[in-house]
Amino acid sequence: MRVAVVGVGLIGGSIGLAARERLGGTVSGWSRSRSTLERALELGAIDRAGDSLADAVRDAEAVFVCAPVGVLPDVVREVLAAAPEDCVVTDAGSTKRSVVEATVDPRFVGGHPLAGAETAGVEHARADLFVDATWYLTPTPGATGVLFERLHRLIRELGARPATIDAATHDTMLAAVSHLPHVFANVLVAQAASALGEDGERMPATGPSFRDATRVAGANSAIWTDIYLANRDALIEQMDGAITRLQDVRAALTAADPDAVTAWNDAAREDRRRLLEAQLAGGPLYELRVSVPNEPGVVATLALELARAGIDIADIALYPTPDNSEGVIALWITGEEPAARAESLVAERGYPVARA
Amino acid sequence: MRVAVVGVGLIGGSIGLAARERLGGTVSGWSRSRSTLERALELGAIDRAGDSLADAVRDAEAVFVCAPVGVLPDVVREVLAAAPEDCVVTDAGSTKRSVVEATVDPRFVGGHPLAGAETAGVEHARADLFVDATWYLTPTPGATGVLFERLHRLIRELGARPATIDAATHDTMLAAVSHLPHVFANVLVAQAASALGEDGERMPATGPSFRDATRVAGANSAIWTDIYLANRDALIEQMDGAITRLQDVRAALTAADPDAVTAWNDAAREDRRRLLEAQLAGGPLYELRVSVPNEPGVVATLALELARAGIDIADIALYPTPDNSEGVIALWITGEEPAARAESLVAERGYPVARA
Repeated sequence: MRVAVVGVGLIGGSIGLAARERLGGTVSGWSRSRSTLERALELGAIDRAGDSLADAVRDAEAVFVCAPVGVLPDVVREVLAAAPEDCVVTDAGSTKRSVVEATVDPRFVGGHPLAGAETAGVEHARADLFVDATWYLTPTPGATGVLFERLHRLIRELGARPATIDAATHDTMLAAVSHLPHVFANVLVAQAASALGEDGERMPATGPSFRDATRVAGANSAIWTDIYLANRDALIEQMDGAITRLQDVRAALTAADPDAVTAWNDAAREDRRRLLEAQLAGGPLYELRVSVPNEPGVVATLALELARAGIDIADIALYPTPDNSEGVIALWITGEEPAARAESLVAERGYPVARA
Repeated sequence: MRVAVVGVGLIGGSIGLAARERLGGTVSGWSRSRSTLERALELGAIDRAGDSLADAVRDAEAVFVCAPVGVLPDVVREVLAAAPEDCVVTDAGSTKRSVVEATVDPRFVGGHPLAGAETAGVEHARADLFVDATWYLTPTPGATGVLFERLHRLIRELGARPATIDAATHDTMLAAVSHLPHVFANVLVAQAASALGEDGERMPATGPSFRDATRVAGANSAIWTDIYLANRDALIEQMDGAITRLQDVRAALTAADPDAVTAWNDAAREDRRRLLEAQLAGGPLYELRVSVPNEPGVVATLALELARAGIDIADIALYPTPDNSEGVIALWITGEEPAARAESLVAERGYPVARA
């Protein structure tokens, strides 16, 4: 298989490594930055550096365009102009309609691997980056069947799980579960900074709910401005829904209506349980909250002990008190039985523990 | 010191234990539930169970009212009617204006310890629950100086750090950094459930931003309905601010204005850094993002290795991929030098690591 990668950063570099190591493919690469391209070559992410974009893709059977969302339509157009007639072209952008709608070509299938947003750059590329990761594919009805099938198989061979979805549903989904949470995080910190601004020195002990809710605030603008804008109509729809919900809660608060507030809060608990259970394989999720002194080694020892007992932790978060003297560890365990064993183990060590 | 505790759950029980163990005080207790009162006696949280609320407080020098926010004004009034003339009365509610404004008595000083919301019940009470915790005190100008001074000293002797603040500022602050994040979490899950609802089986891999942003969604209604309602005007003010901010972002998105979106996002990053730095003692905070295979023992081993190197972790979060095959650990380290050492240590183990 002859694969071309246009844009050889973390994602493109990892595709190159995986295609070479897992498929025995031949990979040509292209980057506007000559030094990045040479680094990719040194690291073995590509076999050959193209002299130009057209040169990199000229005899490819599959091209992966790994460019920022904002320039995807242009770069994909350029690739399609240079790629062979029987070559499938895809991208890795995290919003899909903008590139899919701009691209009328039976060789193109939109794509979005859910992997590796944390460490950028080809130096962090790994052949196993996509192992078991969901990789959305958003073909249009006009896509050539044989090319779509080739891409689907290729992505499975890279180790990922291809999931076919239409571009609009993909973007609505991502707007709701990723882009809106980012917007909310930004709004929360801006609002808190403004509410507390006058107090200057006397910053509050904000506590874990604030820290968690704002963890993604101010995510890398080089990536996120593009994402927000490319998906702006789906995002605006979700924002409008959220604003309406805020106004409904505001009305219940203004009316001092405890039943309405309780019903709203209880519904949120059920919704969250349902959403998280559905997305994590292996059965329902149980959350344990453990109070511990916040000393070096406590979390580690506890996690290690659970590991020794064969209990895998799906999610973990430490909420320290502001002075770090103590804290609560939240442990998310998959499955009733492992959760019960984890609870016993933790209790035996003398730490207060409760199911959340 | 003769201390009375009205309501002997986690907070009241811990006050009793701390007053007895750390101050050598004598503690009388009261609860509407006879079995809770007897359990508190068995556990040594109180020396004596009152026959009535009035009996429990009749010769106290300090009374702590640890009742739900919604009933605080009534219970505090009852306590003040029965308590001696030279007795200071305080509470532990997480919103302050409702009880402070309802209580015109020079013996009363509002209070709010930032501790122990996770595990309820006297069986989880601990003498060290308040060690180094911030404990807000909201005296009115009418408070008797000698009684306020007694309470302030007492709280320091319980191990906490008293922080004096007026009730309105307290409630605005908590609305911004705690109550609004809870509202946003609820709105996010409701919005996502509605956006994804039609898709039924095909729930998305929501990813860490959603899980983190909604961690507190649907928090215990028995506590939170009271909190939302008691602080509703401060909360509504913050919600209105947040809605205005959402509408501003919406306008920037509608106008497809990349500069406005970038400026908004960059400002959020700066705001968050400033807020979190201010609240955590010990210098600026550095976030490391480490990619690891999600196997039992990996997180533990890493945390243990950092612990052995004397690096304390202020905050930790594991973001697994949906199938749990791998994940990113976010580590928050206090101080430039420990963060740099942690980065080297992690890199030496062969895990991709980046400063966030």
